[in-house]
Amino acid sequence: MACDKGLIGMSCTNTNPICVPTHGKDAMLGTNPIAVAVPADPVDFFFDAGTSVVTRGKLEVYNKKGKPMPGNWAVDAKGHPTTDASEVLGNIAGHRGGGILPVGGADETTGGHKGYGYAMLCEIFSSILSMGTTSDSTGKGGRGLICHGFAAIDPSIFGDAAGIRKHFSDYLERLRESAKADGAQRIYTHGEKEVEARERILAEGIPVNDNTMREIREICEGLSLPFADYFGSYLPPETGFKGNFY
Amino acid sequence: MACDKGLIGMSCTNTNPICVPTHGKDAMLGTNPIAVAVPADPVDFFFDAGTSVVTRGKLEVYNKKGKPMPGNWAVDAKGHPTTDASEVLGNIAGHRGGGILPVGGADETTGGHKGYGYAMLCEIFSSILSMGTTSDSTGKGGRGLICHGFAAIDPSIFGDAAGIRKHFSDYLERLRESAKADGAQRIYTHGEKEVEARERILAEGIPVNDNTMREIREICEGLSLPFADYFGSYLPPETGFKGNFY
Repeated sequence: MACDKGLIGMSCTNTNPICVPTHGKDAMLGTNPIAVAVPADPVDFFFDAGTSVVTRGKLEVYNKKGKPMPGNWAVDAKGHPTTDASEVLGNIAGHRGGGILPVGGADETTGGHKGYGYAMLCEIFSSILSMGTTSDSTGKGGRGLICHGFAAIDPSIFGDAAGIRKHFSDYLERLRESAKADGAQRIYTHGEKEVEARERILAEGIPVNDNTMREIREICEGLSLPFADYFGSYLPPETGFKGNFY
Repeated sequence: MACDKGLIGMSCTNTNPICVPTHGKDAMLGTNPIAVAVPADPVDFFFDAGTSVVTRGKLEVYNKKGKPMPGNWAVDAKGHPTTDASEVLGNIAGHRGGGILPVGGADETTGGHKGYGYAMLCEIFSSILSMGTTSDSTGKGGRGLICHGFAAIDPSIFGDAAGIRKHFSDYLERLRESAKADGAQRIYTHGEKEVEARERILAEGIPVNDNTMREIREICEGLSLPFADYFGSYLPPETGFKGNFY
């Protein structure tokens, strides 16, 4: 929305507690995404990332696939690294400790304290300045209590907005065109993947995991909603549904 | 300075190019630190971190000690991980490629694209809005051309500043007091280490690496400055200087 008006947009939100501080084993922080959008050509810069190594959704994907996670994503109830997504999600749901690590990982050697710091910036601009509920205290009494922070900055405060846009677009172009690491095909600037994914999905549909489709069907059955009316054309007879796209 | 006035202070600076974008092998970004200070009790929150895994200074320390770096800090001229600090510093000085990785590491599995994004935020608020020189183009023609961005935010825009300070201080306290991971002694909030280090150094002096002292002595000799006048009282006869503290 901000970019459409030629503005820099910023947005952050805390979440239910799922991320541990550096050297901690209790989830005191949310995945705490920070998003910043800056007008640019041919594609706006759009950076939107959780300050944890990964978001809860990634753990849910590994859980549904029944696959072990990479070893540097999360810790168990005692604060030890674990690859078991089901265990981590269960521990968090049961308030038994553990959680996802901040970006940078478990310790300071790889900058885990930096990810913890970015998570704090999100907290400051969502729950602190608003006098709202910090991530560690959200979700109590059956209420979300999540906090958000929004800002828009007019580049023309700093100078000629069109010149700034050109200056930024040129830098983004140099980044994309810079030398690739051995074996790498492409250097992205933030937002490119999302624009391309949107175009692909509008043309081809959204890929859906089989276990997710099963859950949706069960929810439909539980609510007496006609699953087949929504997904019926994609159901093969042998499995109950076709699978990966709708 | 901002905290002393009850304000939130923000500061960022780009630097000479030393950090590679995700999937890249050429240093197109600086270590690009972002610093945010927020008034709190008993210690202000003070987060000041390069958006690269580590700063150039860490590589120089490993180079001077002649020790291999951890494997996930930097890449060689072809973009492959390396533990040789001397090689990385030499490649960067010689514009042969390679550099330090963004926080989050080499690939997207561990969130390297997030560190690359934080580095971009620094660039936007230092070199882009100012129409200044982006990190990849600094240091040319014998000039630094480094850009900075500064901001101060008055919390009273959002509500009662004293209440916000208390709300934040309480959260910081809960973080520090939260459960420690197995084997961990303490959970820090950002700024505590710096306050404690300042007190320790004022009392005990600054630890200095032997090779650094040797460099300082050589610079003094090259400039015909009396090294002994500054460091003489710490010089043992057999090595020319005492070593670790002054």
